[in-house]
Amino acid sequence: QVDHFGFDENLTFQQRYLIADQHWKKDSGPILFYTGNEGDITWFCNNTGFMWDVAEDLNAMLVFAEHRYYGESLPFGNESFSDSKHLNYLTSEQALADFAVLIQYLKMTIAGAHYSPVIAIGGSYGGMLAAWFRMKYPHMVAGALAASAPIWQFGDLVPCGNFFSVVTNNYKMGGKGCAESIRKSWDAISHLSTTDAGLQWLSSTFHLCSPLKNLQDAALLKNWLSETWVNLAMVNYPYKADFLQPLPAWPVQEVCKYLKDPSLSDKLLLQNVFQAVNVYYNYSGEASCLDMSETGTKNLGLFGWYYQACTEMVMPMCTDGVNDMFEPQKWDFDAFSEECYRLWGVRPRPSWILSMYGGKNISSHSNIVFSNGGLDPWSAGGVTQNITDSLVAIVIPDGAHHLDLRSRNPLDPKSVQQARALEIYYMKQWIEEGRHSH
Amino acid sequence: QVDHFGFDENLTFQQRYLIADQHWKKDSGPILFYTGNEGDITWFCNNTGFMWDVAEDLNAMLVFAEHRYYGESLPFGNESFSDSKHLNYLTSEQALADFAVLIQYLKMTIAGAHYSPVIAIGGSYGGMLAAWFRMKYPHMVAGALAASAPIWQFGDLVPCGNFFSVVTNNYKMGGKGCAESIRKSWDAISHLSTTDAGLQWLSSTFHLCSPLKNLQDAALLKNWLSETWVNLAMVNYPYKADFLQPLPAWPVQEVCKYLKDPSLSDKLLLQNVFQAVNVYYNYSGEASCLDMSETGTKNLGLFGWYYQACTEMVMPMCTDGVNDMFEPQKWDFDAFSEECYRLWGVRPRPSWILSMYGGKNISSHSNIVFSNGGLDPWSAGGVTQNITDSLVAIVIPDGAHHLDLRSRNPLDPKSVQQARALEIYYMKQWIEEGRHSH
Repeated sequence: QVDHFGFDENLTFQQRYLIADQHWKKDSGPILFYTGNEGDITWFCNNTGFMWDVAEDLNAMLVFAEHRYYGESLPFGNESFSDSKHLNYLTSEQALADFAVLIQYLKMTIAGAHYSPVIAIGGSYGGMLAAWFRMKYPHMVAGALAASAPIWQFGDLVPCGNFFSVVTNNYKMGGKGCAESIRKSWDAISHLSTTDAGLQWLSSTFHLCSPLKNLQDAALLKNWLSETWVNLAMVNYPYKADFLQPLPAWPVQEVCKYLKDPSLSDKLLLQNVFQAVNVYYNYSGEASCLDMSETGTKNLGLFGWYYQACTEMVMPMCTDGVNDMFEPQKWDFDAFSEECYRLWGVRPRPSWILSMYGGKNISSHSNIVFSNGGLDPWSAGGVTQNITDSLVAIVIPDGAHHLDLRSRNPLDPKSVQQARALEIYYMKQWIEEGRHSH
Repeated sequence: QVDHFGFDENLTFQQRYLIADQHWKKDSGPILFYTGNEGDITWFCNNTGFMWDVAEDLNAMLVFAEHRYYGESLPFGNESFSDSKHLNYLTSEQALADFAVLIQYLKMTIAGAHYSPVIAIGGSYGGMLAAWFRMKYPHMVAGALAASAPIWQFGDLVPCGNFFSVVTNNYKMGGKGCAESIRKSWDAISHLSTTDAGLQWLSSTFHLCSPLKNLQDAALLKNWLSETWVNLAMVNYPYKADFLQPLPAWPVQEVCKYLKDPSLSDKLLLQNVFQAVNVYYNYSGEASCLDMSETGTKNLGLFGWYYQACTEMVMPMCTDGVNDMFEPQKWDFDAFSEECYRLWGVRPRPSWILSMYGGKNISSHSNIVFSNGGLDPWSAGGVTQNITDSLVAIVIPDGAHHLDLRSRNPLDPKSVQQARALEIYYMKQWIEEGRHSH
């Protein structure tokens, strides 16, 4: 159903989902249901090894459901992003309704699944969806594991600067002088971009595919660098991995090896910055030039996500250059709204998510584990303290963005091993409860 | 916001609500919030005396919120019902979202209301909305009183015939021979309507404003009579009242005074049936003829409700003539769906409400009182047994449709007095909880 909440549009569309049932025990085994987020579901499937690791122990079936408007689940095919009419059904509520209908369908059609307890699992936005799904459809899922889900990164629930100060902490811990070098780099870029020669120097130093032509382009360079620092913090995993990009273990430390001396001259400093970002963009050594329009994997549906950010998923962010290493920038909702209107013809409704999902007043819900990594910028908007006995927070101090959802790895820190053990403990409890509830 | 669940349509509309704060104690007094159903809110306001009766005791503010597409809360003014495009935003989900946004707004704008615990109260469809509101927006309301709310009159949650057998019980208890007389009346009408003379006799005997012309019209007569018997059962109150129509106390008993002898000839039987329905349609003695197109108050928005029944609110009903006094009629979804398509250009989705609100699997929710009257046909689809400690059922054996929500009356049976006392007990408990939750 393209529109679950209206009856005028009666079109349906094909939603993709992946099923793995080799470990599933008919009639009693649970279903672990990944609430897909903003990207290709096969990619999430391949990066959520935790579910594969526990399937055998829990005799569980795995289901990975793709989020509408991402991957191959396009309600209007190639037209899906053509205008605000076609994008109108891209909301979290519709996605949750898709999950509900899919679970209902699977339970009806898979022999022996009718009474299988279902657990929602998701990471990042998918983690929010897992938590919200348990809140709104508790009859569908016995519990939810919401990994690195910034459900409070809305309205004024948390200070808008926290996100970037967690990013900064990664670099402070990454090596001496590292955060300070980055903080100084912004002025260095500003100085150089006042002259054509400077712009040219920047373009060639950063091996940019398309050279900078003016101050606006220089601002894009800064944005691109900022995003890169953020992404590196998100994937600051303890082992070689390829999530957003192929990267070495503890990539922020690698990056920081190039950023030890903040007192260098502008040009020397920026040459080091290039070496640093090159870790992110060219770990494989194959890139001939760097493209500022790309900061991560193509598996994420950036278009769709930007539309969502411009409608429901309004997450205020700001920097002050003091508690973080970025150029100061206030959260400017009006400018954001204008930009959204220009791009998509829609206006964001920043308070709707709070009305819909309760903001911080969620204590009447139950059976949700919120896990967060201490290194992960998104932990700033996450639930990091227990709310009730059954709304539990797990913090993984040396974990990055949903490290706990990744496959077991010999280099995993103790903290993530413990977190996973606790998550399994709660899941088993929910499964028991789910079995007794019918 | 006309569409809470999409961003392409950014229109807003004016929702009507009524506020009474003469008993409200600023800062600590609760808010009793009537979740308006399918009609003019002033009418519900005037027929929900219970809220007025308890306001002083609870130091409560009363808010009556009108449901979109009813009364004066028309999203597109006179165009609201013009086609399926304009009707597209008439759903329970949108109505609940309206309530959420309204509560948020009231708490922001009324001085001293910010921390006031809110309790949702509603009757009938409004009772469903109250219960669903607590389920979906527990952060907004500390609890819900769902009076005569048939939340299980969907899918196959209850047998489709129960509704009409409760109706029939009213007439069995209403007097000897009463239900049997009505059961026999259908054949009598069938016999007479085979000839023109018979049709003419029926038209004049029933004082019909527009005479019957053929078998189809005779079928309409039967439908109209059936609806009348149903309505009488719904408003079978212990005192003179004017809810759907001005009526005497225990109107079913009044009606049954005319229906004592089922063995009479067709014509004598039907003359009695006319006397009986005349109690309903002409208690005031002012009607010069009876209009089959009307069965109740004009305060209900029948158009809107029929659209809702044709989309989300699909309530299967059937009769067998054995456990009830009606002509046997199976529930025919396909025919219903065709009729909906013909009338509104929409197709009903009978399983959606179950996916959305959980059907019978609602035990993980809390703080809802479901009250039902034993005389009320809608109790057939209601929650009449406790589900958990905080999902409580109250049955009022000699109560009709949400009698408990009506004003105190000297003729109230003991059972409804006890029910109200228990409801107040729970409300006070929720208010306490609500106060401690911030």
